[in-house]
Amino acid sequence: MIKHFLALSSFSCIDIQALIDRAHYFSLQKQPDKIHNLLKYKIFANVFYEPSTRTRCSFEVAAKRLGAEVVNFVPENSSVKKGETVYDTLKTLESLGVDSIILRHADDNVFDSLHGRFDLPLVNAGAGKLEHPSQGLLDLLTLHQEFGKLAGLKIAVCGDIKHSRVAGSLMVAAEKFGMEIYLCGPESLLPSQTRPFIHRANFDEILPSVDAVMMLRIQLERHENLELNAKSYHAQFGLTEARVHTMKKEAIILHPGPFNRGVEIADEVVEHKQSRIFKQMANGVYSRMAILEWVTSGENS
Amino acid sequence: MIKHFLALSSFSCIDIQALIDRAHYFSLQKQPDKIHNLLKYKIFANVFYEPSTRTRCSFEVAAKRLGAEVVNFVPENSSVKKGETVYDTLKTLESLGVDSIILRHADDNVFDSLHGRFDLPLVNAGAGKLEHPSQGLLDLLTLHQEFGKLAGLKIAVCGDIKHSRVAGSLMVAAEKFGMEIYLCGPESLLPSQTRPFIHRANFDEILPSVDAVMMLRIQLERHENLELNAKSYHAQFGLTEARVHTMKKEAIILHPGPFNRGVEIADEVVEHKQSRIFKQMANGVYSRMAILEWVTSGENS
Amino acid sequence: MIKHFLALSSFSCIDIQALIDRAHYFSLQKQPDKIHNLLKYKIFANVFYEPSTRTRCSFEVAAKRLGAEVVNFVPENSSVKKGETVYDTLKTLESLGVDSIILRHADDNVFDSLHGRFDLPLVNAGAGKLEHPSQGLLDLLTLHQEFGKLAGLKIAVCGDIKHSRVAGSLMVAAEKFGMEIYLCGPESLLPSQTRPFIHRANFDEILPSVDAVMMLRIQLERHENLELNAKSYHAQFGLTEARVHTMKKEAIILHPGPFNRGVEIADEVVEHKQSRIFKQMANGVYSRMAILEWVTSGENS
Repeated sequence: MIKHFLALSSFSCIDIQALIDRAHYFSLQKQPDKIHNLLKYKIFANVFYEPSTRTRCSFEVAAKRLGAEVVNFVPENSSVKKGETVYDTLKTLESLGVDSIILRHADDNVFDSLHGRFDLPLVNAGAGKLEHPSQGLLDLLTLHQEFGKLAGLKIAVCGDIKHSRVAGSLMVAAEKFGMEIYLCGPESLLPSQTRPFIHRANFDEILPSVDAVMMLRIQLERHENLELNAKSYHAQFGLTEARVHTMKKEAIILHPGPFNRGVEIADEVVEHKQSRIFKQMANGVYSRMAILEWVTSGENS
Repeated sequence: MIKHFLALSSFSCIDIQALIDRAHYFSLQKQPDKIHNLLKYKIFANVFYEPSTRTRCSFEVAAKRLGAEVVNFVPENSSVKKGETVYDTLKTLESLGVDSIILRHADDNVFDSLHGRFDLPLVNAGAGKLEHPSQGLLDLLTLHQEFGKLAGLKIAVCGDIKHSRVAGSLMVAAEKFGMEIYLCGPESLLPSQTRPFIHRANFDEILPSVDAVMMLRIQLERHENLELNAKSYHAQFGLTEARVHTMKKEAIILHPGPFNRGVEIADEVVEHKQSRIFKQMANGVYSRMAILEWVTSGENS
Repeated sequence: MIKHFLALSSFSCIDIQALIDRAHYFSLQKQPDKIHNLLKYKIFANVFYEPSTRTRCSFEVAAKRLGAEVVNFVPENSSVKKGETVYDTLKTLESLGVDSIILRHADDNVFDSLHGRFDLPLVNAGAGKLEHPSQGLLDLLTLHQEFGKLAGLKIAVCGDIKHSRVAGSLMVAAEKFGMEIYLCGPESLLPSQTRPFIHRANFDEILPSVDAVMMLRIQLERHENLELNAKSYHAQFGLTEARVHTMKKEAIILHPGPFNRGVEIADEVVEHKQSRIFKQMANGVYSRMAILEWVTSGENS
C-alpha cells in the first residue's frame, strides 16, 4: 500500500504521535553520518505551483540530511506553459522514476483529482486553503517539545483563519488530540461554523489563559472591505509586547511565517524569549525528515 | 578524443545499438547501489535556453541515479540578461570544471557554431527543429523492447513534422536501421521532400498496417493559416479510440509529450493498453544514463 | 567564533595568503576522491538577490567538489514577493539548519545590517558596488600563480571603476600587499579620491609597463551622459590587439566577466595567449573551495 501524506485528518493520533516522536529524535541527532544513509538513493521531486521559500527549502534540506536527492520542478520554466495538467506533469515525474512527489498547489482539491492514480507516494506541501499537514506536524512537535503533551492545551489563533491552511491543519489536530482552539480576528475572516474544541474568543480576553498563541499572516491588500490599515490592524489584533505581558510566562508564541513585522506581530516580539517562531522553522525540517522517511517506507518504495 | 552526443546521424548502427543495449540494462537494474558509483564525482551542467520539464528533469534524474551531481543553469537568471553569447556562457561553465554540458537551444545550428571549441563533451538536449537525439534514442529503445528488432518496422508519424526535432531524429534512425516511416498530417506541416524509407501516407489508410504510431504535439495557435481548431484537427488527425481499434493489437502508441489531450490524442488513448507514452518517459531516463556514461568515458573525462 | 567571509579588508595578508595557498592546492588536485569528503554532510544556501551565472554556479561547483550539498534560494520564487526582509529570509535559512549562507545583494551595506545577528557563517558573493571578496581572492590567486608574488606588481584597471565591486576588492588587496594600481577610463567613472598604491593613469601610456591589465565590463546604456557608443568606447578604452602588442610579453590580461566582446575588449583578445580570463573562472572555483572550507572550520560548524 502506498503511504501518501496528504492530510492530518486521515491519520490516527498514534500515527501522528509516531511521526512527532521520530521528528523529535531527528531534532536531537547531532551526528549527521548516523542518519545520512536512511534515504540514500531516493530522489524526491519538489513541485511547487505556488512560491514558497520556507517550505520548499525545508523539504529540500530534510531530504538532503537523510542522504536523498531532490529534483526541483519549477512550473514556470516548464511544460505548464504549454498547458500541461497537474496530473500529466506528475505522471511524467512518476515515469522518470522519482521515489515521491512533494506538491504545493493553490487548488483546495488538487489531491482529490489525483487520488488513486499514482504508484508513488504524494506529499502535500500545502494545498489551497484547507490543509498544510507538514506545517501542522511541526506545530504539534513544537507544542509537544514545550509541554510534553498535547491534550488539554489551550491555543489562541489570530488572523485570517478562513483562508489559512495552517489553521486548517491545526484545527484538525485539535479535534484529534483534544486541544482547545480559540479563534480571534476580524469577524469576516473567521469560519462561519464552530466545531467541538474550536471556539471563538476575544483576543485580549483569551490571551492570559492560553498555552500558546498562533499569529497568522494577514494580507490586508486582499481584504479591502475590512477598512483596516496596518496600523489599526496592529492595534486591534497585532501581538504587541503589551499583549505578550498579559500571557502566562510559560506560554509560547507561534507563527508559520513569513510574517509582517509591525502588522500582525510587533517587530520586537518576533524574537521575544517566549517566541518559538524560528524553532518552528527548525522543527519543520525535522518533521519533514520524519514524513519523507515514512512515505518511502511503504511497499512500493 | 572528446565524445560529444550531438546527432544520431553521426553514429553508426552498432554504436546506437550499444547505447540502446546499455539503456536497456539500466531499465532492468533494480538495485540502485550497483550503479550509483558509475559517475561518482562527475558534475553535469544542465543549460536549457528553452523551457522543458521532461527533458531537464530526465537528465537530472539520470545523472543522480549514476551518482553524479547536476548544476542547473537557468539562462533567465543569469549573464544572458547581460548579453552573453552561448559560446561564452558554455566556456564559462567549462572553466568552472564541469565534466559535460547538456544544452537545449532554439537555434537549429547552435552546435555548429560550438563545434571543436570545447575540451569537454557536449550533449544535445534538443536543438531547434532538427535533432533531439536523446529522444530518438529513447524511441528506439521503446521500439526495440517491444519488437526485439528495429529493421523493417513500420511507423506512422502524425502532426507538425516540419517543425519537430523528435520526428527529425526518428527519420535519421529510420534510414540507418531500415524502418519505414509514414508521414501524416496537414499538408503544410509535412516536409517538402521525401527520402529513402520516408513516405507520405493517409493517416486512416496507413494505421491498420503499422507497428507503431507516433503522435506529435500540435500547437494550433502557431498555425493560423491552417484554419483548424482543436475539434476539427482532432477529427482529421487525432488518435481517437476508434482509430486505435483499426490498429494491429500488438502495435504501440508513442508520443514525446507534452501532449494536448483532445487535440492530437484523445484523453482515453493516453493511457490505453497499447500506449507506451509513459514508458517512453521512463526509457528517457535509462537512455540518458547510457548517454551520460558514454560521453564521460572519453579521454578527457 | 563564527568565521564570516565578508570583505578582504578584514583579513590580514597572512590569512589571505593562506587562502590563496589552499586554493592553489585545490587547483593542483587531480583526484576528486581525495577532497570529496572534506565538506561531507555540509549544506550551503546560495541566496542570490541579483542574477549571476558565474558566481552562483562557481560556488555550487566548489561546494559539490568538496562533497557538500547546495540549496539554491531564488528570491523571485519566494517569500520576498510577500515582502520578507533579507534578515528574516536568512534567519529562516539559518533555522532550517544550513551550515552557511552565500549571499549576493545589490545593497552596498547589506552585511552591516546583518552583522552579529547570525550563528552561522555568511559569505559575501558580491554586495552592491563595494566588495566582491571571492572575486578578489581569485584575482590574487591568478596573479600569484603567474608571478610567484604579489608585492610590487603593477596593474592597470580600466573601465567603470566607480561602480565596480571587483575593482573595490582589488584595491583593498593592493594596499595590503603593496601592488600598484593604475586606474584608467572615462573621467566620470573613476573614483574621486586616490589612496596609497592607487593612482590614475592614461590607459595607453601605462599599458607598456604593467604586469597585468584588468578590463571591466562597461554598461554604456547606464551612462548616457558619457556620449560614448560601443565603437568610440572601444577606440578609446577597449583592449585591442594593437594595445596588447604594446604590453610586456609576460604581462597578463584579466576580466571578471561577463565581457562585451568588441566593447571593452576585442573579440580576438578574449582568448589571446596572454589572456587569463578563463583561468580566472577556473580559479574562482578553487578560491571558493578554500573559502567554503575556511568558513565551516570555525567553532559553530
